[in-house]
Amino acid sequence: MATVPDMRPAAADLTAAFARFISTARDRALPPEVAQATHRGFANWMACALGAAGDRDVAAALRVAAALGGAPQASVIGRTDRLDVVNAALVNGIAANILDYDDMHVPTLIHPTGAVVAAALALGESRKVSGAVMEAAVATGIEVECRLGRALFPKHYDTGWHSTATLGTLGAAAAGAVVLGLDATRTAHALGMAATQAGGLRAMLPTPCKSFNIGKTASAGVLAVLFAEAGFDSEPRALEAKFGLFDVFGWPDDPAAITQDLGTRYLTAEVSLKPYPCGVVIHPVIDACLELARMHDLAPAHIRKVVITVHPRTIELAGRQHPDTAIKGRFSFFHAAALAFVKRSAGLAVFEGADVNDPALATLRGRMTAVADPQLQSRQARVRIELEDGRSLEQAVDHPSGSPAKPLTDAQLQAKFLELAARVAPVQGQALFEACLHLERLQDVSALRRHWVA
Amino acid sequence: MATVPDMRPAAADLTAAFARFISTARDRALPPEVAQATHRGFANWMACALGAAGDRDVAAALRVAAALGGAPQASVIGRTDRLDVVNAALVNGIAANILDYDDMHVPTLIHPTGAVVAAALALGESRKVSGAVMEAAVATGIEVECRLGRALFPKHYDTGWHSTATLGTLGAAAAGAVVLGLDATRTAHALGMAATQAGGLRAMLPTPCKSFNIGKTASAGVLAVLFAEAGFDSEPRALEAKFGLFDVFGWPDDPAAITQDLGTRYLTAEVSLKPYPCGVVIHPVIDACLELARMHDLAPAHIRKVVITVHPRTIELAGRQHPDTAIKGRFSFFHAAALAFVKRSAGLAVFEGADVNDPALATLRGRMTAVADPQLQSRQARVRIELEDGRSLEQAVDHPSGSPAKPLTDAQLQAKFLELAARVAPVQGQALFEACLHLERLQDVSALRRHWVA
Repeated sequence: MATVPDMRPAAADLTAAFARFISTARDRALPPEVAQATHRGFANWMACALGAAGDRDVAAALRVAAALGGAPQASVIGRTDRLDVVNAALVNGIAANILDYDDMHVPTLIHPTGAVVAAALALGESRKVSGAVMEAAVATGIEVECRLGRALFPKHYDTGWHSTATLGTLGAAAAGAVVLGLDATRTAHALGMAATQAGGLRAMLPTPCKSFNIGKTASAGVLAVLFAEAGFDSEPRALEAKFGLFDVFGWPDDPAAITQDLGTRYLTAEVSLKPYPCGVVIHPVIDACLELARMHDLAPAHIRKVVITVHPRTIELAGRQHPDTAIKGRFSFFHAAALAFVKRSAGLAVFEGADVNDPALATLRGRMTAVADPQLQSRQARVRIELEDGRSLEQAVDHPSGSPAKPLTDAQLQAKFLELAARVAPVQGQALFEACLHLERLQDVSALRRHWVA
Repeated sequence: MATVPDMRPAAADLTAAFARFISTARDRALPPEVAQATHRGFANWMACALGAAGDRDVAAALRVAAALGGAPQASVIGRTDRLDVVNAALVNGIAANILDYDDMHVPTLIHPTGAVVAAALALGESRKVSGAVMEAAVATGIEVECRLGRALFPKHYDTGWHSTATLGTLGAAAAGAVVLGLDATRTAHALGMAATQAGGLRAMLPTPCKSFNIGKTASAGVLAVLFAEAGFDSEPRALEAKFGLFDVFGWPDDPAAITQDLGTRYLTAEVSLKPYPCGVVIHPVIDACLELARMHDLAPAHIRKVVITVHPRTIELAGRQHPDTAIKGRFSFFHAAALAFVKRSAGLAVFEGADVNDPALATLRGRMTAVADPQLQSRQARVRIELEDGRSLEQAVDHPSGSPAKPLTDAQLQAKFLELAARVAPVQGQALFEACLHLERLQDVSALRRHWVA
């Protein structure tokens, strides 16, 4: 076990500090709670990718990727197809995100596993690495992207950058570097090649291209580490260099803080796993509405008016009152609240089964108003209902289901996993879930495939 | 022949206007001088890619790409290898740029053909399109990227974006859309998928990753059009949408001007083809020094002092007095000026044969000083020499060799082509040059390959 090097460099050594952290990850034991969170995140990622294996847009991506005819190096999750590592990362990254059921690091609005696991797993299968290496890779990738996110949030996101994509590229490359076992020098070059590929526009969010952003981020990370491994050089101080990542995307207020406690403290513990397949800022609204509906046995006809008070960003991200497509419905707290009242659930089957144009839902959405309260945080919601009988009810949620303060239980995560796995015919859901949750026991991560290939 | 639609929309329709322009390109005849410039640019691109076929970094890129094992859909220029279209675009885009001998649209500092031809040719080979379609695709791609560049220059570049990469992604997608024959709707989605992949940091410029940026831009463009063709949707108003390209990268002063005269006026005529394998802003300095050395038969020992006066950007881009690597030497007007005086040439053999640490060159560079003059333009240089005998000589260059006002003659372009082609053993340089210059005569662009595959 290597000792943790001093990780408090000046801004001048930021990239090098990350490169040291990444290149020593295989030799560093994760704190048990970090390892556990990593396994749960990995299982959650796998569940989402499995559940999307039959998705129309994933099928389109797979058609494109398969037509390129790459070597069968890595699995398409939930399917018999195999693709080269770059395209497997691309397709699986899209799949893991497209149901909007994945995970989120709420302080940075980054979906931590999306591109990181897609990149690490594709490379890991092709190199037949162990579950322990995969665990290290995923935890490292998440740490890199979330620390960069924390440094740049909220300005980076408010500018319009889809930070899961922009910063995820470095996370995916970090994870890939661990899988390939790159040394610090080659890792720094890989980070450079990742940084120069960083991109992704929030304009894509209400479209399937949101998920393309994640897939492309994963494949960009894979390409960065493969090029670095092959001896291709980049700028090895890509974070802090003139016209480097920070110089171009914006300098954080305290660059030195980015790498503080690197290798001893992990942000993984701050990650939420979604209990509902929709934007995470909607979740406290759903919790509040479900609680009100169940506690008071409310039928939609009882409801005269609903006032939903949330952080202004929640309105910006999910304040479309009458969404006209399914994906926009997954980013409308009006729609989600209506589902909660009408269906008493906001699960996958409910979201998928409901037509956003259903008059019953539209009528109820029409009775709702939203209030922005900058005093609240993104994780909070206040829902007040006026009933036809004159009563007024109110429900406050400070920590939504799935958040670090109220995490999914293992049983809840298992139920989510099995629900999603069941969408893929031959998958052995329970065995695969356990393999993911005990990732460190795997001799070779390419064995995971057996659970869904008959 | 379709009539040219009205191409002066408000900003609200920018993406749609480009999509219409692109999707009708196959039916629109190019003005003869635009067609000619397109053929010359294509030939110049081919020459640069051929000349780099044996390059060390291109070989590394090819190893990575070949290991992915894609179907043999498109050629690696100058080699027998074939790759899938995405990876062929990647490798050829790198190759065409890596000698720094390509081309430049000086008003935007964009290398117009780099990613555009790499994307169009890879797709064109795989779909066996005609030279006429290739001509339309290349001219269209160049037009899109240079118009976007003109709209955003200089702020975009000054921010640190490598605009050949960022905006080239849309150019490459535009060219690819013409090759695939996408309609306006699918083209708009392709532009969206290109815009969301736009990236590329100027921090990479003194490293081989500069060329990776170009290759990655080409492959991103290919992926965008393949996804669009497969029915994958993006935001079809990606230029003007909230959190779209302009909203995130910066709004141009006059958005409506971007598409003005689209389809009737072309920026291709403003493109320079490089006579020297180095940064284009260095070229007027080289011209001036070569002229002085030849006219006055100067030996380095005669020279006491050299004062080089240029636009401030030339100093920013190429003002390194003592470069320590070959690639940095190609972006140092001190080094280039020293070569001009010592070698009486700044050709490819001279740049490649010279050691940047050669004491004779370093001594002469040490006698040089640079002066920034914002009154000059990037294309200008003033070189004043003080000789040991007390004389003072001065040379002004307003339009460097290769620039639109002083273009390479066909004979000069041919000599450049043959010099580069000769580096690849079995290539039939003269026949390939003529095939490129008469691109419109080709029934199937995949026939070009015959000229370098024995």
